[in-house]
Amino acid sequence: MKQTFAVIGLGRFGLSVCQSLIEEEQEVLAIDNDEELVTSYKDLVTQAVIADAQDEDAMRDLDLGNFDHVVIALGQNIQASVLATLIVKELGAKHIVAKAETTMHGRALEKIGADSIVFPERDMGQRVAHRLISHNILNYLALSDTYTLAEIRVANDKFNGKTLAELNFHDQFGLMLVAIARNNDVQVSPPATAIIQEGDTLSVIGKTVDVDRLDEATSDRI
Amino acid sequence: MKQTFAVIGLGRFGLSVCQSLIEEEQEVLAIDNDEELVTSYKDLVTQAVIADAQDEDAMRDLDLGNFDHVVIALGQNIQASVLATLIVKELGAKHIVAKAETTMHGRALEKIGADSIVFPERDMGQRVAHRLISHNILNYLALSDTYTLAEIRVANDKFNGKTLAELNFHDQFGLMLVAIARNNDVQVSPPATAIIQEGDTLSVIGKTVDVDRLDEATSDRI
Amino acid sequence: MKQTFAVIGLGRFGLSVCQSLIEEEQEVLAIDNDEELVTSYKDLVTQAVIADAQDEDAMRDLDLGNFDHVVIALGQNIQASVLATLIVKELGAKHIVAKAETTMHGRALEKIGADSIVFPERDMGQRVAHRLISHNILNYLALSDTYTLAEIRVANDKFNGKTLAELNFHDQFGLMLVAIARNNDVQVSPPATAIIQEGDTLSVIGKTVDVDRLDEATSDRI
Amino acid sequence: MKQTFAVIGLGRFGLSVCQSLIEEEQEVLAIDNDEELVTSYKDLVTQAVIADAQDEDAMRDLDLGNFDHVVIALGQNIQASVLATLIVKELGAKHIVAKAETTMHGRALEKIGADSIVFPERDMGQRVAHRLISHNILNYLALSDTYTLAEIRVANDKFNGKTLAELNFHDQFGLMLVAIARNNDVQVSPPATAIIQEGDTLSVIGKTVDVDRLDEATSDRI
Amino acid sequence: MKQTFAVIGLGRFGLSVCQSLIEEEQEVLAIDNDEELVTSYKDLVTQAVIADAQDEDAMRDLDLGNFDHVVIALGQNIQASVLATLIVKELGAKHIVAKAETTMHGRALEKIGADSIVFPERDMGQRVAHRLISHNILNYLALSDTYTLAEIRVANDKFNGKTLAELNFHDQFGLMLVAIARNNDVQVSPPATAIIQEGDTLSVIGKTVDVDRLDEATSDRI
Amino acid sequence: MKQTFAVIGLGRFGLSVCQSLIEEEQEVLAIDNDEELVTSYKDLVTQAVIADAQDEDAMRDLDLGNFDHVVIALGQNIQASVLATLIVKELGAKHIVAKAETTMHGRALEKIGADSIVFPERDMGQRVAHRLISHNILNYLALSDTYTLAEIRVANDKFNGKTLAELNFHDQFGLMLVAIARNNDVQVSPPATAIIQEGDTLSVIGKTVDVDRLDEATSDRI
Amino acid sequence: MKQTFAVIGLGRFGLSVCQSLIEEEQEVLAIDNDEELVTSYKDLVTQAVIADAQDEDAMRDLDLGNFDHVVIALGQNIQASVLATLIVKELGAKHIVAKAETTMHGRALEKIGADSIVFPERDMGQRVAHRLISHNILNYLALSDTYTLAEIRVANDKFNGKTLAELNFHDQFGLMLVAIARNNDVQVSPPATAIIQEGDTLSVIGKTVDVDRLDEATSDRI
Amino acid sequence: MKQTFAVIGLGRFGLSVCQSLIEEEQEVLAIDNDEELVTSYKDLVTQAVIADAQDEDAMRDLDLGNFDHVVIALGQNIQASVLATLIVKELGAKHIVAKAETTMHGRALEKIGADSIVFPERDMGQRVAHRLISHNILNYLALSDTYTLAEIRVANDKFNGKTLAELNFHDQFGLMLVAIARNNDVQVSPPATAIIQEGDTLSVIGKTVDVDRLDEATSDRI
Repeated sequence: MKQTFAVIGLGRFGLSVCQSLIEEEQEVLAIDNDEELVTSYKDLVTQAVIADAQDEDAMRDLDLGNFDHVVIALGQNIQASVLATLIVKELGAKHIVAKAETTMHGRALEKIGADSIVFPERDMGQRVAHRLISHNILNYLALSDTYTLAEIRVANDKFNGKTLAELNFHDQFGLMLVAIARNNDVQVSPPATAIIQEGDTLSVIGKTVDVDRLDEATSDRI
Repeated sequence: MKQTFAVIGLGRFGLSVCQSLIEEEQEVLAIDNDEELVTSYKDLVTQAVIADAQDEDAMRDLDLGNFDHVVIALGQNIQASVLATLIVKELGAKHIVAKAETTMHGRALEKIGADSIVFPERDMGQRVAHRLISHNILNYLALSDTYTLAEIRVANDKFNGKTLAELNFHDQFGLMLVAIARNNDVQVSPPATAIIQEGDTLSVIGKTVDVDRLDEATSDRI
Repeated sequence: MKQTFAVIGLGRFGLSVCQSLIEEEQEVLAIDNDEELVTSYKDLVTQAVIADAQDEDAMRDLDLGNFDHVVIALGQNIQASVLATLIVKELGAKHIVAKAETTMHGRALEKIGADSIVFPERDMGQRVAHRLISHNILNYLALSDTYTLAEIRVANDKFNGKTLAELNFHDQFGLMLVAIARNNDVQVSPPATAIIQEGDTLSVIGKTVDVDRLDEATSDRI
Repeated sequence: MKQTFAVIGLGRFGLSVCQSLIEEEQEVLAIDNDEELVTSYKDLVTQAVIADAQDEDAMRDLDLGNFDHVVIALGQNIQASVLATLIVKELGAKHIVAKAETTMHGRALEKIGADSIVFPERDMGQRVAHRLISHNILNYLALSDTYTLAEIRVANDKFNGKTLAELNFHDQFGLMLVAIARNNDVQVSPPATAIIQEGDTLSVIGKTVDVDRLDEATSDRI
Repeated sequence: MKQTFAVIGLGRFGLSVCQSLIEEEQEVLAIDNDEELVTSYKDLVTQAVIADAQDEDAMRDLDLGNFDHVVIALGQNIQASVLATLIVKELGAKHIVAKAETTMHGRALEKIGADSIVFPERDMGQRVAHRLISHNILNYLALSDTYTLAEIRVANDKFNGKTLAELNFHDQFGLMLVAIARNNDVQVSPPATAIIQEGDTLSVIGKTVDVDRLDEATSDRI
Repeated sequence: MKQTFAVIGLGRFGLSVCQSLIEEEQEVLAIDNDEELVTSYKDLVTQAVIADAQDEDAMRDLDLGNFDHVVIALGQNIQASVLATLIVKELGAKHIVAKAETTMHGRALEKIGADSIVFPERDMGQRVAHRLISHNILNYLALSDTYTLAEIRVANDKFNGKTLAELNFHDQFGLMLVAIARNNDVQVSPPATAIIQEGDTLSVIGKTVDVDRLDEATSDRI
Repeated sequence: MKQTFAVIGLGRFGLSVCQSLIEEEQEVLAIDNDEELVTSYKDLVTQAVIADAQDEDAMRDLDLGNFDHVVIALGQNIQASVLATLIVKELGAKHIVAKAETTMHGRALEKIGADSIVFPERDMGQRVAHRLISHNILNYLALSDTYTLAEIRVANDKFNGKTLAELNFHDQFGLMLVAIARNNDVQVSPPATAIIQEGDTLSVIGKTVDVDRLDEATSDRI
Repeated sequence: MKQTFAVIGLGRFGLSVCQSLIEEEQEVLAIDNDEELVTSYKDLVTQAVIADAQDEDAMRDLDLGNFDHVVIALGQNIQASVLATLIVKELGAKHIVAKAETTMHGRALEKIGADSIVFPERDMGQRVAHRLISHNILNYLALSDTYTLAEIRVANDKFNGKTLAELNFHDQFGLMLVAIARNNDVQVSPPATAIIQEGDTLSVIGKTVDVDRLDEATSDRI
């Protein structure tokens, strides 16, 4: 079912939200008070309008209270993001996502009425740091304080040509291997006879410490 | 094994990288040409120095060629990020990660010698968009063009109290259920007798279209 | 009983608050991030410190949670006033008064946690307008939608030398005359024999329309 | 009788003056040299024009010498407020009210010819300070050095259900009780049988020290 | 008898006033709020201090009320010149000369209390215009609407070697010749036998139209 | 005979030159690159054009080489005044007058080709200083190092009602009295029977020291 | 054969490139994002367009990949010159010349894909330095580390009227004299009977040290 | 013989002049009013001082009148370059070289007294244009309107292995071949038996049209 989205602020973050939503064939209203930005991107979204998010009347005219989601992507201008969130909230918006610069800014937005807060620079910094520390972990989801779901690239030839049974995979690492990806093919829930090769990407689930052990075992560092 | 990291630029992204690395007990040298920033964060990292990343001599004195990773977190100043990447590359840095503002900026950094490029605003915009579109998908990893690993929150009571066997989970959705998280407890590879409740988070792996079907089935929207 | 006050922001409004409180012999801590302002006024208040109201640690160090009243006098910088209000609120301040520029700014401050909001320019504009419209009303307090307490200057000689009894004051104007001020002398609850002269200031209470009638009757305009 | 007003400067103060005058159905000419401001508020006033208050010819064309009142609301730009006051005075304006930033600015405006001077930030700062110091005084008018007319809110239950006679109000406090307001109802000159309740607002007149005593007696502080 | 002078503002005009006064061996106190200017010129005057002319206390400390003359040389900053004039006037300065930019600025300074107003750019423009129009008039003093005192250079050889008697000077031009200057020698009230040569400068007094006739007669233009 | 003038730069000085020339009914072309200034003053001069004085082609199109006088009134922008003078000179202008800020600026303009240089602020500063030092000298012309022509106001009653003969004027002061001005009447070469009164203005010629003696004798200072 | 050139950036360097190419009757497309510059110079080149060199689409529309040479003359804006070079390279431009400010900037441009780099300020500084050091060397080409081709002006009369044979030129200086220029006449490969005069320009080839000896021998310095 | 040089202005051009002079072991005094620049380069030159070139006294103190050459490298600030040239000229400098931005700027500097003018951007633009147009001309000196001395690279194999005699070089091209450079070896005045190879650089002298013919003959373009 198609939903309706209003994105306020066409900086890099807001623009990226718009593009991703349009790729998923959603209805997107883009709003910015910079005429040049609105003109540049008007063909990219369902509708684009020039309006000041701090102007209550302008926001009311756009009927923001009836959108399924409003994304306040005005992060760097804290005043604007606070007042826009307030106005949109008072117009009755159902779901408000707002971008914040600092923790304090995020807390203010929550008090004003934002339903969820995004910190792009901070969050991406954390991801980059984790990727740098790990050897071959490409991506991960922290399921709880102790459990992690991770994609690990096999970067050495120690496992080459061995079956999961030979490797005694589950016992040795305490991990459940949920999928093996080779190029663009994915084998979900691989059987004990599946063979691992250097370059495969393993999706595993288990305790974070066990994931880290596998990460080291598959490393190409000495 | 501890590695050494140099982070150039102490804006929100660079700072977040530093904090995450320090939490993982890595050695971090932070570099910025703004005295105030360096002073503010000098206790947060292993060492913090005031230096201009566009000054070749200064970078050489810091011995950047011998660090395991150099993170160029100067995104908004394209000139500085290009020249800093060039200097660090010529000093022989092993692994350079650079933050970019635009696709074109990213391509220039690659030509100059950056090993990987990060686009925080663009990437976080994509994530937010996907989260907004889905009903209950909290996080996801795209394993290939067709396979996805996803965390889905059960937001209605349709499954309440039913076992996996009763639900005929695998057949009905074509997905492998790899874990059930309830509050902070995670049950990996749950047995057929496991019971699902509203509020549980299911980690599933399978085709993207099947993941979307489960997302709708667990939705609280009508 | 002496109370403790913290005033954040030493613009004209904040400064005037400080001066009035000190005249009443209260304890006043004045805070501004402008060194010059703090130095200029440090002898005027109990204590004056240079600090950034958007810096949570600095505010905590000043122990703002334990003051009886905190006045956020940062109106023109909406970002600063919003974040300072949030910080002070989270530190547990008992009573927060904040200055606002616009209605929307005021609503944001209330959501963030300010206990009362002041709009100096707007309120003083209303007072000036009312004074200009009236003939001789020097000051007034609106007791309800219909009742007003007003000070009216007698600007013609029509009443000169007449007693209240002769004027049949209460019946004619429907007002209660609570005081007559002549120069610096005030006669509260004047008797029927009291004589009115041009230049007297009458404190009356009654319906607003009646006050306006008296205002016209005492006018020097034709 | 309707009067004519010219308001020069459409900042918050000037705008508030205009709005209050229009609410009282007066003729208001609004003047500002900012096209955007004039356009925004042109429907709010009788007439709005774009003109530079420092341009003698422009002011003469607007016939400012024939208005009943001219309000110079240009406070922050001292040069403009001084020259505008001079021009308007020389055009023969009957009554000039000017907003000032500082005492010195106010004195200059008086010398130049302003009939009365307004200091919104300073005056509102004094009011806020007095309100903070007092316990329950909502508003007050200083009738002379010693006499005050005040509105006091009863904030405890000590008087609950007692008549004025029982309380021996006049003797105990030395004050004349001129009105009791409960919600939006006002009882002027209440009889001795009137009953006071927590939450009532009492309008009293008397010596300032006596008013302060009543303020403490009705306080909810220990 | 030596007099005391305070010059406020060390721009080109103020500096030139200071230099001329010092050449005449007067006591000069120079005041500017620009530390660099004060330092540069402190050896040029009797005393030079850094102070803000808009700061009443600073001006009082300098005892400006007791100087014989105060020159307000702050022309371009109209606010500063108005407030400085007011402060100096209120401190009781005996004689205030102020530089103005425009006629309106000059009128404001007079109202505030300046004893005389100087318009350097305007007045020098008039002098230059008159010099350009005239043929050989080097300088002039307008004694009344019709009479002028002028210095005229003889720029042709028509009078060469003739005595005043031969030229019938007084009858022909209707002017009184009060002096003949040749190089640095001046002959006051020259006799009828005095001889005029090309290059002499004649000081004459008479009607302006007659001065203009002599100006043309002594011209080198055809 | 009418002459033609071009005035480049419509600041206060250039404008004053234009106004004075037009009052004398000369042909004046005014040039400035500020559209607003040119529009404001276009009715004041014979012709006004918007043009950049640093643009050689634009100046050639205006045919500046054929004007009798070109006034470069661009003082504060040294670059513009230097280049405009060069261009106008190379176009063959007959007579160039240029305004300078500093001595060095003036010397550069002379080298570039200006025929005469004007320093309004400096020269007016000198005049003001001399007027302040003297008691009653209203104006003066320095004829040589030792001789001065001066207008002196009689500011006391010592000479009241006395004839020049009685005063033995010439012998006592060593000055030639060339005119007595009373209000707007001027008596040139007054006879010995002429009577002096307080308030008269005496035009005298003689040695500077003698002029200063008369200045003191006519003073109202003790 | 005519070639096609695109010149990006119309500062002094780019403009000079355009003018020289047009003088040689080449096809030149000039590109700048400053409308005023493009308008000023549009008649000077084959075609001039307003476009942003950092805008990939705009550059593609101009078909830059099909020009024989693209000159990136954007030196001072390092970001723009880097991104423009990248875009033009990716469009397939055959030959790219780019102007650089610093060595590091030049290196970055080379990595990005520029075929040759120009440093106007640095190179012209070197030429000026060499010309200042030499006595009479007007121009030179360094053929190798030891050989130079130089134009030397004969600045004294020591050789006056002597033939090359008499001077024993080749043996004395070890140089080959390839041409003698007198005014605008050039005698290539002059015979032994050719006579040298003061003021002649000699084109010689030989070892740099020998060229320097001839330079001193022909000097007018003592 | 060592000479003395003063270089005013440490931008890229001035710095390059300094470096080239120091490489030739000359005495160089570098002057700039930017403390940071002077500090950075103080070890590069004989002496470096912080001074304002527009300050006559400062320049006199540096004794600029006694240097052999003064280089005014202040091009972009036209005012500074004009005034500095004037000051240095008046101090008696023997030889002044000044950098100019535009032709008009250059003419002004000449009038003020500069002995020679340099236009780096314009001249380097011409050189680049000529190099782009020619096929293989690496460098050239224009000896007169018709004669050129040029270095041409042989870019095809048409001449490979042939002697000058076989090629009938002089007759075919009308040029004198003065040297053949191969790698870093130079053969001056090569004999008829000398063999030419692809990649050689030929120094030739002759008519410009003949040089262009050889340029095409040695081209690798079809």
